[in-house]
Amino acid sequence: MRRDIEPFFAPRAVAVVGASRTPGKIGHEILRNIKLSGFRGNIFPVNPNYGSVLDLPCYRTLADVPSDVDLALIAVPAKLVEGVVGDCVRKRVKSAIIITSGFSEVGRRDLEDRLVSMAKGKMRIIGPNTFGVYCARSSMNATFGPTKVLEGKTAFITQSGALGLALMDWTTEEKYGVSAIVSIGNKADVDDADLVEYFADDPSTSSILIYMEGLKDGRRFFEAARRAVRRKPMVVIKAGRSARGAQAASSHTGSIAGQDAIFAAAFQQAGAMRAEGMTQAFDWIQALNENPVPKGENVVVVTNGGGLGVLSTDRCEMLGLKLMDLSDDLTKQVQDVTPSFGSAKNPIDLTANADDLLYGEVLRLIMRRREVDAVIALFCQTANIDPGLVARAIVDARDKEGLDKPITAAFVGGRMSQMAYEKMLERRFAAYPTAERAVDGMNALMTRHRQLKSFGKGGR
Amino acid sequence: MRRDIEPFFAPRAVAVVGASRTPGKIGHEILRNIKLSGFRGNIFPVNPNYGSVLDLPCYRTLADVPSDVDLALIAVPAKLVEGVVGDCVRKRVKSAIIITSGFSEVGRRDLEDRLVSMAKGKMRIIGPNTFGVYCARSSMNATFGPTKVLEGKTAFITQSGALGLALMDWTTEEKYGVSAIVSIGNKADVDDADLVEYFADDPSTSSILIYMEGLKDGRRFFEAARRAVRRKPMVVIKAGRSARGAQAASSHTGSIAGQDAIFAAAFQQAGAMRAEGMTQAFDWIQALNENPVPKGENVVVVTNGGGLGVLSTDRCEMLGLKLMDLSDDLTKQVQDVTPSFGSAKNPIDLTANADDLLYGEVLRLIMRRREVDAVIALFCQTANIDPGLVARAIVDARDKEGLDKPITAAFVGGRMSQMAYEKMLERRFAAYPTAERAVDGMNALMTRHRQLKSFGKGGR
Repeated sequence: MRRDIEPFFAPRAVAVVGASRTPGKIGHEILRNIKLSGFRGNIFPVNPNYGSVLDLPCYRTLADVPSDVDLALIAVPAKLVEGVVGDCVRKRVKSAIIITSGFSEVGRRDLEDRLVSMAKGKMRIIGPNTFGVYCARSSMNATFGPTKVLEGKTAFITQSGALGLALMDWTTEEKYGVSAIVSIGNKADVDDADLVEYFADDPSTSSILIYMEGLKDGRRFFEAARRAVRRKPMVVIKAGRSARGAQAASSHTGSIAGQDAIFAAAFQQAGAMRAEGMTQAFDWIQALNENPVPKGENVVVVTNGGGLGVLSTDRCEMLGLKLMDLSDDLTKQVQDVTPSFGSAKNPIDLTANADDLLYGEVLRLIMRRREVDAVIALFCQTANIDPGLVARAIVDARDKEGLDKPITAAFVGGRMSQMAYEKMLERRFAAYPTAERAVDGMNALMTRHRQLKSFGKGGR
Repeated sequence: MRRDIEPFFAPRAVAVVGASRTPGKIGHEILRNIKLSGFRGNIFPVNPNYGSVLDLPCYRTLADVPSDVDLALIAVPAKLVEGVVGDCVRKRVKSAIIITSGFSEVGRRDLEDRLVSMAKGKMRIIGPNTFGVYCARSSMNATFGPTKVLEGKTAFITQSGALGLALMDWTTEEKYGVSAIVSIGNKADVDDADLVEYFADDPSTSSILIYMEGLKDGRRFFEAARRAVRRKPMVVIKAGRSARGAQAASSHTGSIAGQDAIFAAAFQQAGAMRAEGMTQAFDWIQALNENPVPKGENVVVVTNGGGLGVLSTDRCEMLGLKLMDLSDDLTKQVQDVTPSFGSAKNPIDLTANADDLLYGEVLRLIMRRREVDAVIALFCQTANIDPGLVARAIVDARDKEGLDKPITAAFVGGRMSQMAYEKMLERRFAAYPTAERAVDGMNALMTRHRQLKSFGKGGR
């Protein structure tokens, strides 16, 4: 366990230096979020101008705070940061998140280096130039982003502030739960490698997602990643792949994006799954979080729409997912329960008349089979079948027969289909609005299966 | 103009043979949809068992209908279809849509061939095994799908019933308007080539979208496509790319999917844009429908999130979209209006403080420039900026300065971002929930630009 990192995520006492009474100001929003998020430790606003902020007693300086402080959030103007870091060190604060910007990202690496050397060996620093840290386990939202964050299993480390903030909204909207969010900022001290090591050990984290533009110490990161991947899946979005993208990354975070081919090979070797963009990354993470890893490569697709079956078969084949040939025995069982029948080959086409009862029955038949490793259930909205009922039948079938097998689903259609898959998300089911995305989710699970197999784990 | 096809889309009188009083029955749903959709022609239910259906006088047989009939919808059991087709021919009905299934798709090509030869030279047939036809121009929803369809500019031809029905819901949910939807069924008579020729001439259609599993007469289709593409863009989803997908297509619609490489080359040569799946196809269509074609290849990206800028730059480069270098002059103009500034290089990063006023001002500056051909505007939800206001500023900037330039946008974040881009869709703006998709939309426009250029059209 990385004890030096722990105070960022499980502090008993937090100080907000630069706390403000003015809504909209960062020093106000962070304090407000910490207070509203249900954090159970002590919260100490620090600002010489106020006696209290948000009904909390406010202290002139850190030195005046009448208790130890595990974590200081620093939201003062750039020119005051150095003084506050000095105060932190004197107060023996264990960790500091420097929200303030105006350091290496605008060319002032000298200022940043000074902060790090002041704290060296005494206090760890996240930032500067970050929006903060959220930790589900501590019910601590120490960010100036949205107050409400959905608790879940993924630790998200982001080098982009805006993307991270937008994602915080996604957690509630798209039901992508997170165990932690770290806006890693300029990485003056704590970097991706530190956090990967920490989250690899963190029992409340079951997957790690990173948005990254550049790395300072590539070797150390890939070493940490390689070890972490043996314990939990890791998905990385590495921006700055193209020459012009790398140039944009350099003016964004001052990162040297590096040769993309080298990164690609290193991710591959470390076992980190590299996503093309945010949607794919979250789709993968959702499938990985809500499912067991398949024990083999045999996939079965069930659909009520022949076209959807064909499209998803194409995508499976493109990605290297193996649609198994069904045994005669299973084929017969499926045919027996289906009055009017499309196709009992894989993809199984239950035809547009398929209702919740038929979906449930066929899925239970399939999931009971030892030779089936994974299932993709697809539904096209039709005139007379309620997608909500079908969604419930699919989740029930999983809960009853399929808890040892991964399953992803797509509901394609209008508002009713959308409501149906959103209900499934609430029941911790990896559901999507398109067949492509349900297949992509399964692909992440199959990649994980192959990884575990290469580690000598998993398998039937 | 294909006069033989016209009665399917602009009939003066429609008969529904097999009209039913029972909600849920196809013969009921189709009649109900035609009636509720605002069709202005005459509607004649035909069924020997009823005196009236849905308050319309019902006739025992087609012969009893007291007027000419341009279009007959046939929704009777398979064994009665042949008799009804005979009735149609005797009544000199110009066109028939055979909803009924149970023909070549279940191996009874003989039955299907007989219907075609009965009608040959006298009546055109769509189907059998279709869900019908929708035509915006005639306000005619002659399908058993959802009643409400959003009117727009795309003609959609689908070989998959379920996908087509699901898509009908998308038209209202995702604001993908259509000029027509044709469920083409078994293509016993009317096929893709006929419809492509028809829609190429149809003034209410400005783009053509096809979901296809197989073709009977490839040469004729590609010839028709080549001609149509000179007039309007065409997007094709061709399923059955993979060996197993082709096998699934064969058990779905009895189609021979054919060698995918041959299809790929033929689509390329004809200028039909081949999409990987439904989402990409609709994203392309939306960008094409709501925008002028760019006059050159110079793209500018504007964002409030550096990370989003980097990711979208990567995607642009991957797809071959050219992010132009901004002139010193334009760079200075942009810098002058921006108090605190991220990057005036392309992608232009307005930083997280950018509000609607700044977006509006910078977009107007860019769009006024003759050397700029296309713009991608990206917004990451932040704590204190209202996405709705930014969305409005972007649409206003287009309406004021950019009507000759294509622009796509993405709003990334939670519910407020979603509401923002949905509002943009209502204002006929190609907006998306992710940056990848906004870039993909622009890519379709640039592909179209290159096509037109190869035809000697377009350019600055």
